[in-house]
Amino acid sequence: MAHPKALLFDVFGTVVDWRTSVAREIERIGAAKGFTVDGHAFAMAWRKRYQPAMAGIRENNRGFVPLDILHMENLLEVLAEFGIDGLSEAEINDLNIVWHRLDTWNDSVGGVNRLKSRHIVATCSNGNIALMVNLARRTGLNWDMVLGGEVAQAYKPEREAYLRSAAFLGLAPEECCMVAAHNEDLTAARSFGLQTAYVERRNEFVAAGGAPRPASQEWEWVASDFLDLATKMGC
Amino acid sequence: MAHPKALLFDVFGTVVDWRTSVAREIERIGAAKGFTVDGHAFAMAWRKRYQPAMAGIRENNRGFVPLDILHMENLLEVLAEFGIDGLSEAEINDLNIVWHRLDTWNDSVGGVNRLKSRHIVATCSNGNIALMVNLARRTGLNWDMVLGGEVAQAYKPEREAYLRSAAFLGLAPEECCMVAAHNEDLTAARSFGLQTAYVERRNEFVAAGGAPRPASQEWEWVASDFLDLATKMGC
Repeated sequence: MAHPKALLFDVFGTVVDWRTSVAREIERIGAAKGFTVDGHAFAMAWRKRYQPAMAGIRENNRGFVPLDILHMENLLEVLAEFGIDGLSEAEINDLNIVWHRLDTWNDSVGGVNRLKSRHIVATCSNGNIALMVNLARRTGLNWDMVLGGEVAQAYKPEREAYLRSAAFLGLAPEECCMVAAHNEDLTAARSFGLQTAYVERRNEFVAAGGAPRPASQEWEWVASDFLDLATKMGC
Repeated sequence: MAHPKALLFDVFGTVVDWRTSVAREIERIGAAKGFTVDGHAFAMAWRKRYQPAMAGIRENNRGFVPLDILHMENLLEVLAEFGIDGLSEAEINDLNIVWHRLDTWNDSVGGVNRLKSRHIVATCSNGNIALMVNLARRTGLNWDMVLGGEVAQAYKPEREAYLRSAAFLGLAPEECCMVAAHNEDLTAARSFGLQTAYVERRNEFVAAGGAPRPASQEWEWVASDFLDLATKMGC
């Protein structure tokens, strides 16, 4: 297979550390408002509702809605689950967009910049456009383009999320390589004809007591981080 | 009105010099293949078919198709009009994407970079995503996002092209400012609630013998180029 022209990046967990960022924010709010909360448990509970919320859309029970809206619906449930009821509407709205303010892994910005020297670098996340644009501006991620869920109007792992993203770049699926820390994302991408790069992000779940998730197939590339991937891709 | 959070840029003529770039390319091809052609006349003839082609889509006679396809249909007509028949299919395909290789005006890259320090900078062009991404990579334009025609699935001056672009950024129309060298683009943007910035690009038409097109209304900003606009916008 020829070297890919474009890299399509998963973002949550692959480029940014959602767990620590969300945990820190809810704990900061707790400290300010006088309640205690296990930030990591809160982040995990919020994230756990992510796939089921998208499944309702993927299964056509509901038209496409941007992730910010699903995040808000899930946040209201998680706040209730954790017994947190002292936040104003403005505070809840601001907490909901903590996903626009996530921190990157240490190698993400530099790695994307190196990979950009030889490839189109685009997001292919389920995060909505505003979320991705605000995240990139805050962290200095220099994407060529935000693709994925909202632009394709389909949530991964639906085929349209991958194939429309490639087509929007004027490329065939095999000219694109999906970059992700999650085997299931890469399994879907490969099934639709994209090349695949697995990047290990042990701090996403393993650092919080989760089981390791090594590469489950022989992906075209396997790397320890984006700098390693850049070296392996000749950048 | 509050200072805008995002600037939406028209591209052809406002950011890039399509006329000189297209003229140079067809004249280069002519020199190599042994025919003579008035490059500027060729560029103007190709461009003249741009609005009528989009009108067919805007008037719902045809579903949305990316600009690359309209460009190709128009190119075949213009080649016939100019009696140029010695090009292979590959050469015609390559000529069609000259629009992915246009040169910027001298101040465009530096101006966008300065404006980006305070605003989200996004394209709101009728050019398709691949065209905009390739153009930006080749010239060093650092957009936060490509919006407009293909992402909105509607061609300017249709309202959805402007309003969906603002909504994709999570912004109200009045939080966005359309930046263009064309009064009709700004007239449409203003009618849908966006702020407006007129940038004079005398080299687009006046340098080729066209009439001057000064600002036709009191736009929120009027600037001689992007550096002047950056200064006026406090960047």
